[in-house]
Amino acid sequence: DYKKLDKVIIGILPGDGVGPIIMKQALRVLNHLLQKEIAEKKIEIRIIDGLTIENRSAKMQTVPDDVLEAIKKCNVILKGPTVTPKATDPWPNLPSANATLRRELDLFANLRPVKIPEKNIDWAFFRENIEGAYILGSKGIQVNEDLAIDFVVETKQGSDRIARAAFEYAKNNGKKNITVVTKANIVKLTDGNFIKAVRKVGQEYPDIDIQERYVDATAAKLNNPEFNKGLEVFVLPNLYGDIITDIAAEIQGGLGTAGSANIGKRYAVFEAIHGTAPDLINNGRGDYANPCSLLRAVAMLLSHIGYNDKSFQLDKALEICTITERKVVVTTKKTDASAAEFTDYLLETLKRIG
Amino acid sequence: DYKKLDKVIIGILPGDGVGPIIMKQALRVLNHLLQKEIAEKKIEIRIIDGLTIENRSAKMQTVPDDVLEAIKKCNVILKGPTVTPKATDPWPNLPSANATLRRELDLFANLRPVKIPEKNIDWAFFRENIEGAYILGSKGIQVNEDLAIDFVVETKQGSDRIARAAFEYAKNNGKKNITVVTKANIVKLTDGNFIKAVRKVGQEYPDIDIQERYVDATAAKLNNPEFNKGLEVFVLPNLYGDIITDIAAEIQGGLGTAGSANIGKRYAVFEAIHGTAPDLINNGRGDYANPCSLLRAVAMLLSHIGYNDKSFQLDKALEICTITERKVVVTTKKTDASAAEFTDYLLETLKRIG
Ligand SMILES: CC(C)[C@H](C(=O)O)[C@@H](O)C(=O)O
Ligand SMILES: CC(C)[C@H](C(=O)O)[C@@H](O)C(=O)O
Repeated sequence: DYKKLDKVIIGILPGDGVGPIIMKQALRVLNHLLQKEIAEKKIEIRIIDGLTIENRSAKMQTVPDDVLEAIKKCNVILKGPTVTPKATDPWPNLPSANATLRRELDLFANLRPVKIPEKNIDWAFFRENIEGAYILGSKGIQVNEDLAIDFVVETKQGSDRIARAAFEYAKNNGKKNITVVTKANIVKLTDGNFIKAVRKVGQEYPDIDIQERYVDATAAKLNNPEFNKGLEVFVLPNLYGDIITDIAAEIQGGLGTAGSANIGKRYAVFEAIHGTAPDLINNGRGDYANPCSLLRAVAMLLSHIGYNDKSFQLDKALEICTITERKVVVTTKKTDASAAEFTDYLLETLKRIG
Repeated sequence: DYKKLDKVIIGILPGDGVGPIIMKQALRVLNHLLQKEIAEKKIEIRIIDGLTIENRSAKMQTVPDDVLEAIKKCNVILKGPTVTPKATDPWPNLPSANATLRRELDLFANLRPVKIPEKNIDWAFFRENIEGAYILGSKGIQVNEDLAIDFVVETKQGSDRIARAAFEYAKNNGKKNITVVTKANIVKLTDGNFIKAVRKVGQEYPDIDIQERYVDATAAKLNNPEFNKGLEVFVLPNLYGDIITDIAAEIQGGLGTAGSANIGKRYAVFEAIHGTAPDLINNGRGDYANPCSLLRAVAMLLSHIGYNDKSFQLDKALEICTITERKVVVTTKKTDASAAEFTDYLLETLKRIG
């Protein structure tokens, strides 16, 4: 319970590409909503530099030691997108900073709520956030010139705790069913184990139904009312969670409408669900990056540390600014508002409704 | 060139669940369109029994030896959906018959064209069909009680030949770009190799652009005109191909609107892209299964063996029956036509336009 702490430290990782641009706006909103708590030193907002692709490349470290140390001194983190180099990129082929942070901070659950009242959709996704294709993602074996192997890893503990998180959420929120999404007809062992873990945990929650779906059909039909009728809580191995939650966010209205929470026992990292948007930067349109996904992450962070009212207020203001009064939506079209102009309007709205 | 053969043998694998029901209708259409060729013994239609889950379970063979032998005596195959057991299913946990057939017959390319003229969409997907998460899909290692590992495999030859197929298609069809879809920021080695192979083959086709996209963003935004503008030909590792082609089919109007071609140097298997529909069977509604995806596969088969006119005719008739005159579309609603009634109407339509 964060309210019992003398002080909650919110670490800020601006990230790469459009990250620092949208983070600047997120900070304006955080400072506004928490001005009293910051003045009273109940909250500290602490910028942590150094998680940039340039610094990571120079140090040849995915998350440089001093950055990780600084992160671990915070209670919660707000993170902008970071570049994840691949073998064919110009940078050194370092592992993903996202995947590394999730592992180092043991953030085993990735939560992305998606709500579309008009469609009767109220989904909670519980993505296993450390294992699967991710944990050994940078340690494949080039057996010989012709043959390469990557690994998918599943542990009993890993599947158990994400399943438990999903069932606890379902129980506490009056949800009646959990859908486990895998490709267990092909990836038989690890996905099969994942399903078995969900079923086993499920025995402790006899009121909650378990359904099994395949990732290909789920990806195709998630937005199809015949398919998604009655679905509420999803639990998914890492890679399928990555794919399906992006689809769900798009169904909700685009990446700007969803934030992402990476939750562990000790730490929590909140982030935008989009990438660094190199195209925008290259076209000199970085200032027009849409800050909404990161601002949703801010709302999730506020609720996580116990400021439910402020979280609700921010979500409400975001809704007004993006849905009800579409004129200031930033969609990167020439006629749109910049990230800063959008945030001006958001802050006005917050003051008006606050 | 099949037209040079004395006789083309079309093997028929009815499959499980709704498979035999829709295959019966597909046979009516095949027999109608090829009646002359069958009478002249230029075409033989040969039913191959035994690829049922019951027989496979009894023999404890994914594709029983005698079935595989019979298949190998045919030139092309029309296949209904088959059950792929997973560890938690009641059947013995045999590997996927689909994956096994694709490997045994060396069907390295899975092709699924998607056309939506109103949206300016004309996509060709080249899914690598043997490797990736599939080739060792049933051979994961349970290291100890707590830890399990599955494998993702990539070979130089495997990536090279699917890339080559995609570029050849692009060249021969005046397409200007190829999009390679991976998760190479995480699955670094095998997906990285896949991209490198595409780039290397691409050097022989200097007029064709190569774009790289991630599978999560592609899954979410494939239907978004800002994202998909100008995309034409896709080349994808197996699992991403599985997911993205299902999404593309749904965008086109549902699984019923797309068939799937598994192509190798010597054999080719055409199939419906949906599963065995156990729910329909269990609800006693099997006769109302939608035969359209399998009929699209018939059209692809006809074109593959050189009967482009008949293929075109069938596609046209399907379009009339499903789009222009929606009344007989089978959507499994109580008011719909059965598979047989739909096919009656399709055959009438074929005669009318033929
Ligand atoms: C950037 C990438 C490594 C990351 C992931 O795959 O997890 C992102 O897509 C996400 O979902 O947070
Ligand atoms: C049934 C299943 C094994 C198969 C696959 O995953 O390839 C199917 O989804 C397909 O796309 O043909």
